[in-house]
Amino acid sequence: MGEVRTDHLADERRRAEFDVEAMKIVWAGSKHAFDMSDRMGRIVASDPVFRKDNRAMLGRKELFKNTMRKAAHAWKRIIELRLSEEEASRFRAFVDEPAFTDLHWGMFVPAIKGQGTDEQQQKWLPLAYKMQIVGCYAQTELGHGSNVQGLETTATFDPKSDEFIINSPTLTSSKWWPGGLGKASTHAVVYARLILGNQFHGVHGFIVQLRSMDDHVPLPGITVGDIGMKFGNGAYNTMDNGVLRFNNVRIARNQMLMRVSQVTREGKFVQSNVPRQLVYGTMVYVRQTIVSDASIALSRAVCVATRYSAVRRQFGAMNGGPETQVIDYKTQQNRLFPLLASAYAFRFVGEWLKWLYTDVTQRLQAKDFSTLPEAHACTAGLKSLTTSITADGIEECRKLCGGHGYLFSSGLPELFAVYVPSCTYEGDNYVLQLQVARILMKTVSQLGSGVQPVGTTAYLGQVEHLMQCECSVQKAEDWLKPSIIQEAFEARATRMAVASAQKLSTMPNQEEGFAELSADLVEVAIAHCQLIIVSKFIEKLQQDVTGKGVRKQLEILCNVYALSLLHKHQGDFLATGSITPEQASLANDQLRHLYDQVRPNAVALVDAFNYTDHYLGSVLGRYDGNVYPKLYEEAWKDPLNDSDVPDGYNEYLRPMLKQQLHLARL
Amino acid sequence: MGEVRTDHLADERRRAEFDVEAMKIVWAGSKHAFDMSDRMGRIVASDPVFRKDNRAMLGRKELFKNTMRKAAHAWKRIIELRLSEEEASRFRAFVDEPAFTDLHWGMFVPAIKGQGTDEQQQKWLPLAYKMQIVGCYAQTELGHGSNVQGLETTATFDPKSDEFIINSPTLTSSKWWPGGLGKASTHAVVYARLILGNQFHGVHGFIVQLRSMDDHVPLPGITVGDIGMKFGNGAYNTMDNGVLRFNNVRIARNQMLMRVSQVTREGKFVQSNVPRQLVYGTMVYVRQTIVSDASIALSRAVCVATRYSAVRRQFGAMNGGPETQVIDYKTQQNRLFPLLASAYAFRFVGEWLKWLYTDVTQRLQAKDFSTLPEAHACTAGLKSLTTSITADGIEECRKLCGGHGYLFSSGLPELFAVYVPSCTYEGDNYVLQLQVARILMKTVSQLGSGVQPVGTTAYLGQVEHLMQCECSVQKAEDWLKPSIIQEAFEARATRMAVASAQKLSTMPNQEEGFAELSADLVEVAIAHCQLIIVSKFIEKLQQDVTGKGVRKQLEILCNVYALSLLHKHQGDFLATGSITPEQASLANDQLRHLYDQVRPNAVALVDAFNYTDHYLGSVLGRYDGNVYPKLYEEAWKDPLNDSDVPDGYNEYLRPMLKQQLHLARL
Ligand SMILES: Cc1cc2nc3c(=O)[nH]c(=O)nc-3n(C[C@H](O)[C@H](O)[C@H](O)COP(=O)(O)OP(=O)(O)OC[C@H]3O[C@@H](n4cnc5c(N)ncnc54)[C@H](O)[C@@H]3O)c2cc1C
Ligand SMILES: Cc1cc2nc3c(=O)[nH]c(=O)nc-3n(C[C@H](O)[C@H](O)[C@H](O)COP(=O)(O)OP(=O)(O)OC[C@H]3O[C@@H](n4cnc5c(N)ncnc54)[C@H](O)[C@@H]3O)c2cc1C
Repeated sequence: MGEVRTDHLADERRRAEFDVEAMKIVWAGSKHAFDMSDRMGRIVASDPVFRKDNRAMLGRKELFKNTMRKAAHAWKRIIELRLSEEEASRFRAFVDEPAFTDLHWGMFVPAIKGQGTDEQQQKWLPLAYKMQIVGCYAQTELGHGSNVQGLETTATFDPKSDEFIINSPTLTSSKWWPGGLGKASTHAVVYARLILGNQFHGVHGFIVQLRSMDDHVPLPGITVGDIGMKFGNGAYNTMDNGVLRFNNVRIARNQMLMRVSQVTREGKFVQSNVPRQLVYGTMVYVRQTIVSDASIALSRAVCVATRYSAVRRQFGAMNGGPETQVIDYKTQQNRLFPLLASAYAFRFVGEWLKWLYTDVTQRLQAKDFSTLPEAHACTAGLKSLTTSITADGIEECRKLCGGHGYLFSSGLPELFAVYVPSCTYEGDNYVLQLQVARILMKTVSQLGSGVQPVGTTAYLGQVEHLMQCECSVQKAEDWLKPSIIQEAFEARATRMAVASAQKLSTMPNQEEGFAELSADLVEVAIAHCQLIIVSKFIEKLQQDVTGKGVRKQLEILCNVYALSLLHKHQGDFLATGSITPEQASLANDQLRHLYDQVRPNAVALVDAFNYTDHYLGSVLGRYDGNVYPKLYEEAWKDPLNDSDVPDGYNEYLRPMLKQQLHLARL
Repeated sequence: MGEVRTDHLADERRRAEFDVEAMKIVWAGSKHAFDMSDRMGRIVASDPVFRKDNRAMLGRKELFKNTMRKAAHAWKRIIELRLSEEEASRFRAFVDEPAFTDLHWGMFVPAIKGQGTDEQQQKWLPLAYKMQIVGCYAQTELGHGSNVQGLETTATFDPKSDEFIINSPTLTSSKWWPGGLGKASTHAVVYARLILGNQFHGVHGFIVQLRSMDDHVPLPGITVGDIGMKFGNGAYNTMDNGVLRFNNVRIARNQMLMRVSQVTREGKFVQSNVPRQLVYGTMVYVRQTIVSDASIALSRAVCVATRYSAVRRQFGAMNGGPETQVIDYKTQQNRLFPLLASAYAFRFVGEWLKWLYTDVTQRLQAKDFSTLPEAHACTAGLKSLTTSITADGIEECRKLCGGHGYLFSSGLPELFAVYVPSCTYEGDNYVLQLQVARILMKTVSQLGSGVQPVGTTAYLGQVEHLMQCECSVQKAEDWLKPSIIQEAFEARATRMAVASAQKLSTMPNQEEGFAELSADLVEVAIAHCQLIIVSKFIEKLQQDVTGKGVRKQLEILCNVYALSLLHKHQGDFLATGSITPEQASLANDQLRHLYDQVRPNAVALVDAFNYTDHYLGSVLGRYDGNVYPKLYEEAWKDPLNDSDVPDGYNEYLRPMLKQQLHLARL
C-alpha cells in the first residue's frame, strides 16, 4: 500500500484564479517545450543515481567521483533514450550539478564550432559529440580574467617543425578556473598570445591535448590539477575547476582555431575574410543562455520561499485559531512578490534574447553588422542585470524562510553558492555594464547627427519628447497603463543618459571623464536594461496568450515588476523629473493593491514552473507542503547523529567537564 | 635562516597620510583594549591547534571533533594564562569558529544571571564558570521562532512531587536550532509554557539537565540530536545546533528561573517585585554585542577586498607598464569605500551602544524605566540594520575580488556563510524594524501632547522646524559640513515618519493599518536608524581624537558614509523635499572627490583593524599582498590532487571515452 499523501497546500491551490496548466505552457514557451521538459524532469527525478540530497556528506574526492558517475550515467541514458540535442541538454540541466560536461557542451564544442575552420570542425566535432574526447575552455589565468588581451600564455610558431610551442612563462600565466580542466578533460581550447618571429599577433584559441588517451595521465610538459574548494558544501565543488601550466608543449599548426585568422606554413599571419564580429555572435549566444538560466535559478528560489511562506505561520492567532501565514504579511509580500514577478520578467526577456540571437545570426550570414554592437551590448547588460538580481534574490528568498532557510536541506544555500559565480564569469557584471554605458554614450552623442539609434536603443530617437514629457498619472490606477509605465521608464533612462553625456562632454579628456563618471554610468546602463525588460514584458502581453485568467495574472506581474522597480529606484525618477513625488507615492499605493491580487495566486504561480521535488531539492519547497515531519526526518541523517555521544567526547569534552584537562588529548 | 618576506603592499602603506598606530587605538577603543586584543590575536595565531585552513576538508564528524578539541584547548590556555573574562572572550573570538562555548558563555550564563534568583545564581554559575557543566539556550522550536509566545513545549507543575514536568506535546514543539544543544551541552535553559492546574501562565525559562554527568548519555525521556548541515563548508557546521524532545521529563521546582516570576510550593503563580523590563536589559546587552560583531565581520571582508584590490591589476597598461590596480577604478571605489566607511561607522555606533547599555543598567537599578522602550527599540533597529548591511557587504567584497573571491581560500565564502544567520537569530531583521516603526509611530502620535521624545528620537521634538527647513547646500563642498548632513538626515527621517503616521491616522483600524503599511514602515525605521549611525559618527568626531591625520581620515569616512547613504536613498530625500535634485547631484560630485581622498589611505585604513593573517584566513587578504604564489600553493593541497588520475576514472570516465558504457560500474 502506498503512503497516503496529504496536500498541505491544497487550499492555496484552490484559491488560484487562473488555469495553472495553461500558465505552465506560457512559462515553458510552448506546448512542445513543456512536454519535453516535463518528461526530462520526471526521468531524472525517478532515477536513484541522480539523488543529490547526500552532497553535503561527501568529501571532495567522493563528491567528484559521484559527479563522474552521474555524468557517465546521464550519457548512457541519453544514448539509450535516443534523446535529441535539445532533450539531452534539458536532461543534463535537471541533473542539476555543475559538471565537466557543462563546459564540454557549453564552451568547448561552441568554441570549435565558432572559431574552427570547416576542416577543423570535421576533425574534432565528431570526437566531441561522441564524448571520445572531453574538452574544456581554458582562457582565464591566475593573473588575468576580465582583461583577455593581457593573457600571458604564449603560442610561438616554430617554422622548422610546423608547430606551435605553448608555454607558461610566468606563475601568473598559469591557466586558472577553467571548469572540467582539473581532472576530467582530455583536451582544451587554450587561449594564448600568438608569437610569430618576434611579433605578437593577439590572443587566439588552440586545441591542446592534455592527457593521454590510454591512461588519462597528463602528457609531458603539462602540469594540471584542481584549484581547490569553492563556496558551499556540494555546490561548485562537484566541478574540477583547474590549474594548468605548459612547459614548451608542441602542437601541430592546424590546432590553432583558424576560422578568423590563420598562420601559414611559412609563419605568416593572415586575416581570413570571415568577419571578426563573428566572435560577438558566440558571446550573444552564451550570454543569452545565462539570462535564461537566471530566470530558472530565481524561479526555483521563489518557488521554495512562496510555498514555505504559505506553510509557515507565526503570530496573530485569534482565539486559539491558527496563526497568520507569513505570506500574508505585507513586508513578506514586498520582498517576495517583486522577485516572483522578476522571475517571469527574466523568462520573457530570455525568450526574446533567443529570438535576438537568431536574428543576429541571420544578419551575420547576410553580412549585415549594423545591429551587432547594440545586440551585443544589450545581451551583456541583461546578463549583468539578471544575474545580479538573481544572486541577491536567492539569498533574499533564503532569508524569507527564517531560520530554516539556513539549513542545507532547505536547498537555498546550495542554490546560492552554485549560482553566484554567474555574476563573475562570462564577464564581470560591472565590466559589462560599463560596456553598455559606452554604447549609450556613443548613441547619445550621435543623436541629431542623423545616425538613428537601433534595436533597444531606438527610444533614444525620441529624445526631444522624452526630455520634456510629463507623466500624466493622477490616481493610483493610472499606473496600471502600460503606455504610462513605458514612458516613465523611457524618460528616466533617456534623461539619465543625456545628463551623463552632457557631464562627459564638459570633461577635457573623454577617456578619463568616462573613468571618473563610471559609477554613475553603471546606473545609466542599469536604467536602460530595466527599461528593456519592462518593454519586453509589455510586448509579451500584446501577444496571443490563452488560458483562463492567464493574461490577467501576467498583467499583474508585469505591473508588480515595473512598479516595484520604480519604487526601488525612485531617486532616479524623481531626480530626472520623470515623475513627481505624488506620483511616486501613488505608484506605491498601487503596488500594495497589486500584492493583494497576487496573494491568492502566489502558490499557483510558482506551481506553473513545473519543478519536480527532486529538482527543487528543498524540504521547505516540497510540492505537498509537508515541511515539518520531513525536516525532522532529514536531521537525523546527519553523521553526527550516528552516536548519542559524539566522537571526541572522551578526548576533549570529558576532561574539560571533569576539570582534568591535563589528561585531554590535545 | 628565515624566509625572506617582501611586502607587496609597501608602496600603498607609504602613501598613507595618517598615523596608522594611532588609528589602531581609535579602532580598538583605547590603548588598553588595543594591547589586550593584539596580544590575544597573536597567541591564537601562533598556536597550531587553532589552524583553520583545513576546515573544508573535514567531514562533519571530524569537523565537530576538531571544534571540541579547539574548545578544550582554548579553555586550557585560558586557565594557564590566567586570562581575565574580557581577555578570555577576545581569545575565543580570535579562535574564529562557531562553537558550543559561544552559547554557553553568550546565552546560557547571561540567562541565569539575568533571570535567576540569587540562590539560583549561586548554585549554577560556579558550575558554569568552571565549565563543569556546559549549557545552551533552548528557545526556538520547529514551529516557532519569532513568535516566542507561541512556543508549545509545556512545563506543568506537579504539586505532589514539587516538580515540573517538561513535555513536547507535538512534533512542532521540538526544540530546534539551539547552538551547542545537539552534542555538547549537558544542560539547557529551556523555554516552555508554564501550566499551573489548567491555567497557562506565559513562557518561562527552566534549567534542565539533558545528559548524564557520568557518560554524557542523554537522560531518560530526552531525545536530542543535531539538526544537520547548514550553509557553507566549515562555517556553522562546527556548531551542533540541535533538536530536543521531552517525554514528560521531571525537574525540581527550583529549576524554573524565578527572578521575575515564581511558582510557590503550593503551585501559585507570583510576580516578584523585580521589574519585568529587566528582560529588555538583557536583550539590549546581547544585541549590542551583535552590532559590535557586525563591524568586525564587515571590516574583515573589507580588509580582504581592499588589500586584494590594491594587488590585483587588470587593463590599462600603457607602453608595457604595469596594468591599473583595480582599486583605482571608480566603480570599485564606489562599491568598496562606502563599506569601509560603514565598518568604521558600525564600530563607533557599537561603542556608543555599549555606553547605552551601561546607562540603561544604571537607570534600571534606580528604577527609572523612562528611556528603556526607546533604548530597546534603538538596539533592535541597529542590530537589524548593521547585520543586513554586513551580510550584503561581505558578499559584495567577495564579488569585488572577481573570480578568486569564489575560492574557499579567499576566506570570504566562509565569512559570509558564518555571518548571514545574524540577520535571523536574536530577532528576524524585518520583525525588529517593525518594532522600531511601532515606537516611532507612537512617538509621532504623541508629539504636541507634551510627551517629549527621548534618546535617539529626541530630534522629533523639533518636528516643526524639520518639516519645513530647507537644505542650504549650494556647492559640492557644502556637503562636508556635519550640521548640514545631520539636518538633511533628520528632515528625511522626520518627514517619512510623519507622512506614515498621517496615512495611518486615516485608516479605520490602527492594527490593520499598520499591517497594510508595514513595508513603508520598515523604510521609516531604516531612515531613523541610519540617522542614528550618522549622528554617532559625527559625535565621535567631536571627541578628542589624537594622532597625525587621524581626525582628518575619520572626517572623510564619516562624509563617505553619509553621502553614499544619501545617494543610495536619494528617493527618500527627494520625495520628502529634504533636498533638491541639484543638491543630490552635488552630493554625488562631492562623494567622488572624497573617494580620491580615501584612495591613498585605503590600505592603511584596513591595516588599522590590526587583524592577523590567521584571523583573516584569506590568501587574498594577506598582509604582505603575496597573493599569487600562495593561491597556487593552496590549490595543490586539495585531496583531488592526491593523484593525477582521479579516483573513478576507471569506473566512469574511461568507459565513456572508450564508448564502452556497458562496462561502466554505474
Ligand atoms: C565558478 C567559475 C567558473 C569559471 N569557469 C571558467 C572557465 O570555464 N574558463 C575560463 O577561462 N574561465 C573561467 N572562469 C573565470 C572567469 O571567467 C573570470 O573569473 C572572470 O572573467 C572575471 O575575471 P577576474 O577573475 O579576472 O576578475 P577581475 O577582473 O580581477 O575583477 C576584480 C574586480 O575588478 C573589477 N574590474 C576589473 N576590470 C575593471 C574595469 N576595467 N573597470 C572597472 N572595474 C574593473 C571587477 O569589477 C571586480 O570587482 C570561471 C570563474 C568562476 C568563478
Ligand atoms: C544559525 C542559527 C543559530 C540559532 N541559534 C539559536 C539558539 O541558540 N537558541 C534558540 O533558541 N534559537 C536559535 N536560533 C533560532 C532563531 O532564533 C530563529 O530562527 C529566529 O528567531 C527567527 O525565527 P523563525 O526561524 O521562526 O523565522 P520566522 O518567524 O518563521 O520567519 C519567516 C519569515 O516570516 C517573516 N515574519 C515572521 N513574523 C512576522 C511578522 N510578525 N511580520 C512580518 N513578517 C514576519 C520573517 O520576516 C521571515 O521573512 C538560531 C537560528 C540560526 C539560523
